[in-house]
Amino acid sequence: MAHNTFGNRLTLTTFGESHGKAIGGILDGCPSGLTLDFDAIQNELNRRKPGQSKLVTQRKENDKVQFLSGIFEGKTTGASIGFLIENSNQKSKDYNHLKDVYRPSHADFTYDKKYGHRDYRGGGRSSARETANWVVAGAIAKQIIKDIQISAFTSTVGAITIDKPYQKIDFSKTDTNDVKCPDAKTAKKMIDLIKKVKSEGDTIGGKITCVVQNVPIGLGEPIFNKLQAQLAKAMFTINAVKGFEYGTGFCAAAMKGSEHNDLFTTDGTTQSNLSGGIQGGISNGMDIYFRVGFKPVATLMKDQESIDKNGNVVIVKGKGRHDACVVPRAVPIVEAMTALVLADFWLLDN
Amino acid sequence: MAHNTFGNRLTLTTFGESHGKAIGGILDGCPSGLTLDFDAIQNELNRRKPGQSKLVTQRKENDKVQFLSGIFEGKTTGASIGFLIENSNQKSKDYNHLKDVYRPSHADFTYDKKYGHRDYRGGGRSSARETANWVVAGAIAKQIIKDIQISAFTSTVGAITIDKPYQKIDFSKTDTNDVKCPDAKTAKKMIDLIKKVKSEGDTIGGKITCVVQNVPIGLGEPIFNKLQAQLAKAMFTINAVKGFEYGTGFCAAAMKGSEHNDLFTTDGTTQSNLSGGIQGGISNGMDIYFRVGFKPVATLMKDQESIDKNGNVVIVKGKGRHDACVVPRAVPIVEAMTALVLADFWLLDN
Amino acid sequence: MAHNTFGNRLTLTTFGESHGKAIGGILDGCPSGLTLDFDAIQNELNRRKPGQSKLVTQRKENDKVQFLSGIFEGKTTGASIGFLIENSNQKSKDYNHLKDVYRPSHADFTYDKKYGHRDYRGGGRSSARETANWVVAGAIAKQIIKDIQISAFTSTVGAITIDKPYQKIDFSKTDTNDVKCPDAKTAKKMIDLIKKVKSEGDTIGGKITCVVQNVPIGLGEPIFNKLQAQLAKAMFTINAVKGFEYGTGFCAAAMKGSEHNDLFTTDGTTQSNLSGGIQGGISNGMDIYFRVGFKPVATLMKDQESIDKNGNVVIVKGKGRHDACVVPRAVPIVEAMTALVLADFWLLDN
Amino acid sequence: MAHNTFGNRLTLTTFGESHGKAIGGILDGCPSGLTLDFDAIQNELNRRKPGQSKLVTQRKENDKVQFLSGIFEGKTTGASIGFLIENSNQKSKDYNHLKDVYRPSHADFTYDKKYGHRDYRGGGRSSARETANWVVAGAIAKQIIKDIQISAFTSTVGAITIDKPYQKIDFSKTDTNDVKCPDAKTAKKMIDLIKKVKSEGDTIGGKITCVVQNVPIGLGEPIFNKLQAQLAKAMFTINAVKGFEYGTGFCAAAMKGSEHNDLFTTDGTTQSNLSGGIQGGISNGMDIYFRVGFKPVATLMKDQESIDKNGNVVIVKGKGRHDACVVPRAVPIVEAMTALVLADFWLLDN
Repeated sequence: MAHNTFGNRLTLTTFGESHGKAIGGILDGCPSGLTLDFDAIQNELNRRKPGQSKLVTQRKENDKVQFLSGIFEGKTTGASIGFLIENSNQKSKDYNHLKDVYRPSHADFTYDKKYGHRDYRGGGRSSARETANWVVAGAIAKQIIKDIQISAFTSTVGAITIDKPYQKIDFSKTDTNDVKCPDAKTAKKMIDLIKKVKSEGDTIGGKITCVVQNVPIGLGEPIFNKLQAQLAKAMFTINAVKGFEYGTGFCAAAMKGSEHNDLFTTDGTTQSNLSGGIQGGISNGMDIYFRVGFKPVATLMKDQESIDKNGNVVIVKGKGRHDACVVPRAVPIVEAMTALVLADFWLLDN
Repeated sequence: MAHNTFGNRLTLTTFGESHGKAIGGILDGCPSGLTLDFDAIQNELNRRKPGQSKLVTQRKENDKVQFLSGIFEGKTTGASIGFLIENSNQKSKDYNHLKDVYRPSHADFTYDKKYGHRDYRGGGRSSARETANWVVAGAIAKQIIKDIQISAFTSTVGAITIDKPYQKIDFSKTDTNDVKCPDAKTAKKMIDLIKKVKSEGDTIGGKITCVVQNVPIGLGEPIFNKLQAQLAKAMFTINAVKGFEYGTGFCAAAMKGSEHNDLFTTDGTTQSNLSGGIQGGISNGMDIYFRVGFKPVATLMKDQESIDKNGNVVIVKGKGRHDACVVPRAVPIVEAMTALVLADFWLLDN
Repeated sequence: MAHNTFGNRLTLTTFGESHGKAIGGILDGCPSGLTLDFDAIQNELNRRKPGQSKLVTQRKENDKVQFLSGIFEGKTTGASIGFLIENSNQKSKDYNHLKDVYRPSHADFTYDKKYGHRDYRGGGRSSARETANWVVAGAIAKQIIKDIQISAFTSTVGAITIDKPYQKIDFSKTDTNDVKCPDAKTAKKMIDLIKKVKSEGDTIGGKITCVVQNVPIGLGEPIFNKLQAQLAKAMFTINAVKGFEYGTGFCAAAMKGSEHNDLFTTDGTTQSNLSGGIQGGISNGMDIYFRVGFKPVATLMKDQESIDKNGNVVIVKGKGRHDACVVPRAVPIVEAMTALVLADFWLLDN
Repeated sequence: MAHNTFGNRLTLTTFGESHGKAIGGILDGCPSGLTLDFDAIQNELNRRKPGQSKLVTQRKENDKVQFLSGIFEGKTTGASIGFLIENSNQKSKDYNHLKDVYRPSHADFTYDKKYGHRDYRGGGRSSARETANWVVAGAIAKQIIKDIQISAFTSTVGAITIDKPYQKIDFSKTDTNDVKCPDAKTAKKMIDLIKKVKSEGDTIGGKITCVVQNVPIGLGEPIFNKLQAQLAKAMFTINAVKGFEYGTGFCAAAMKGSEHNDLFTTDGTTQSNLSGGIQGGISNGMDIYFRVGFKPVATLMKDQESIDKNGNVVIVKGKGRHDACVVPRAVPIVEAMTALVLADFWLLDN
């Protein structure tokens, strides 16, 4: 499998650098005859878009996707779907001072060592700008599996966490605030925290919870393509992710089997769902839920000491346009990658 | 990619059920001319073997691997390596009572719904017996990348946790006790806890920490085959795994960028290593370290209410041979999967 | 994709050397619930087996396949199917004199240059013994797509050719003679030719024609997995194959469009079938037919001048057990590889 | 592997329909640091371009490739290379009359049956316009393996054939005439034949010979990724190809082993090269040469009886812009696909 390709039956192959002419991708394996809701696709892109609020980077991108193939008279044809998003608001000059510099906890050093020659502007290929491609593809994937509900939301920023189970959360509220937390009170606290951190020139980490409902029984392929394994891979593909857990997650380490086992009801559902909807790598029809942990953004609006490629000490100035907390904009990305995984498995079976 | 195949350049394809004649696999892509240390391979299998101590299942398997191809006069030829492990101690009759029963939090239900026809004996294909195959392949992978040190150990059982950083741990002590915890005092507590839980007919979860040292710079392939993403996938392939985090992991969610960033020293190493040895999906030469969370074993030595395939309520008796805590035997499995991932990436570059 | 793996959805991964303990493979992706006809599988192996007649190599192999997994109570479970064929009649000593020798038009030279270290006995991994694995897997594939009829036969040996169109051939006669040519008169001539060539210590080439009937419309995947492209790849995987053509094949080069086009009848079939059952990489429901050309076996029962690995001139003695014409034994191999290709595409759609 | 993706280590994924906005692709796996010769790439596109001469279709396309990523300051970065070719001269109205019609020996019928909904304009995804993408990628592949010489030429049109061995041909003459035949006299005859056939509203088939020189020893991967097998797959990917043979090809069927074997010289080269440069699926350092047979173009400038999707008899009018012989324009396509195969194998080893 090529390394810029994700998926098995439904595959997304992408290209594009932060400050190139355009980014884009090819979605292959989409069934024919699907009437696409283009507004829904654009809407997902808008959810991820920079410049939406004062909390996030002020890079202004239209992020208008153009489809170039695979769609005829509004419906998919089964041919590969090529798409493009132009980069309109590159301020590449902002990055000239970073030409030979390795920013702390960025990919500058590793890309330079691995590839020798790199597009340093805005992180080049390693930039999270790439994730706009995934959101386009994920929005189509959502339409392939439209009976399945995928709901991600910001559950933690710094020390602020929603303290209720997902069953008590109204996912329709997620997009009602800038931090994409469906609980208004918690959202307010998160926003205040991000503003404070931002005013200090600093950044903060967080967590996203994702809940998948109405999942058919049987998705996932043992042994080496278990549903949770592919979800984990998808999540760790997202920039800044440091942890993934599903169901009880790490809490399971402290539990006993007699506490953790989900007993069946006679209709094949389970009375509890500590397992998180997957057994043996295969969905069991219960809700799938998982949490994704994000590190704080590495770019600070503060000076940091670093080195250049010749090993000289340099000062990395706090410049450019960046998010003080990546989590709110990552919500649609988590949903998109989840949708790609689920649609892929669904197509294997249907 | 076939679903019983793992890897890209170095691929492991496996087969086998818990109570079939044999399990085995094919390791493809191993370079030619490698002199294999067969004792080292068998030793890894022995570390995973059932019946090693009173803590683990009393199923007695020789777990003697036979190599059938790809090796000539003690050295690899570059041809695919076929291997076999016979199942010698199946007590299949122990499972007759489970023919139509769905055990709680096992894969019986999902396999039956997905495949219709299944080998129910001992979990069939979903059994952790499969992991013996991975240990064989991983032991060869370790020999491919012999300069890289992979050290996993039991870091948590229930509420008992090693409370020191890995830098202060002597990995050579890991195999000196039945629980594979390199800290003698903590090991003692873990063993006591497992014995207690076992005496109650119950089981307990835990965590494994894995540290990878002497990693070359440059392993990992953006965008969709990032080193951490493939490690995550590998870990979630292991039965009972519920969580994976690397570097700071979920703790990063509560941190600020100014705390989390790893500043460089002039030789390209970093002063701290909160990142866990990976930036942008590529190893940066610092130690890679991660934690894997395991749920408690689902098979209890207690009666549990469940259902059969017709929806009738049945009592699952506490019978058979099982581990009260899967974590100690999973230590060599975590190492094996890590070795497969790293050798795969290493071969892509070399 | 690993290089010892064939297929996409139905994958065969193999191992084994001519003179190792055993050869074998793993067939992954077989649907569950298929009742296997084991006699039919063994029968295909018997058709390929050495020592069947005086025309072919006198190596005597039982070629008895053992299935190790993926089958329970006679039916497939959807798990990977591991199988094994023991090598019982290796006369490895026959090959000691070839340890450092490069036999003309064999793979000794290229394997040695590519791998450095090789199992030289009987050609090692490059031996056609490997094809027994394919025949096992192909026999299962035939059972997956049992409505499709695959009929291969020897159509040419040296200058002797069946001179009638396949529509006039009774495929049930193919196995009635040692040369697997369904036309008795032509078969007689072929047998005489092979005997004559053999008595001279020489070998002879030939062709196989394969006809696939009752093919559903729609098999094949544009752009890069066209049905004819995958069939071609499958055929060139077979040792000694030098040419592949389907439909009119190379004759099309001399034809005009007005002669070559297949006009439709109103039911969607075509009045002629010069195309050979495929348009745009997709089956159109008409018969697929193709021809495969084989070179003469490189091992002669005559002395040949050659070189050893140090560049010294050596004489390769005409020893060992070999076929004077590979074509008759390749008939079931052609069918097996065809079945693997078709079953793979069929499973993609069903 | 996705079906719109070709290759293993160097992969090309493509999209685009004949009459869509653009076609394009993503080339993944290109090494970093390669200084690209953009003129050479455009030159290959120009060699394939429609409207070059009176012999070929008069569709006028600029066929100007735009690169969107993976290249920085003229050199590759190791990131995926996205590229685009706009469709500028679609005359889609020409195809309105074909909306529901199945043209004889085209892919209309099979695409419609497989996908249900299709872009019928100019053949949509099944159009040879797609091959422009391959030529772009192949031109980059040629630069990756710049020491290897790939020389294809028109060797046969209808009954007109170059009657000398490739060793006596000056490949630098291939592009000196409209038919891409390096022998001036034969070229003249071919041109006359094509003109005559064209004046009759008819089309004609032909053959391309391709010679690969200066090939390193060791390219190709047994068992299922043999060099000849992948070359065959690549060639049958090209529209209208009906046959592929390498070395002696089908002629080998009539030969004896004593005639066909290539004896070694003491430097490891062979005295003859009937094998065509490959043994056991691996290049042996001798020239690789093969022939590809093409059927006559299915679109005629004559009326043909056919059916529509409802089974009604219709007359397909001879309209639109098409080649009377596809072979001359296929010469750069054969070279491009050959380059993709060889560069892929080369990267696996280097």
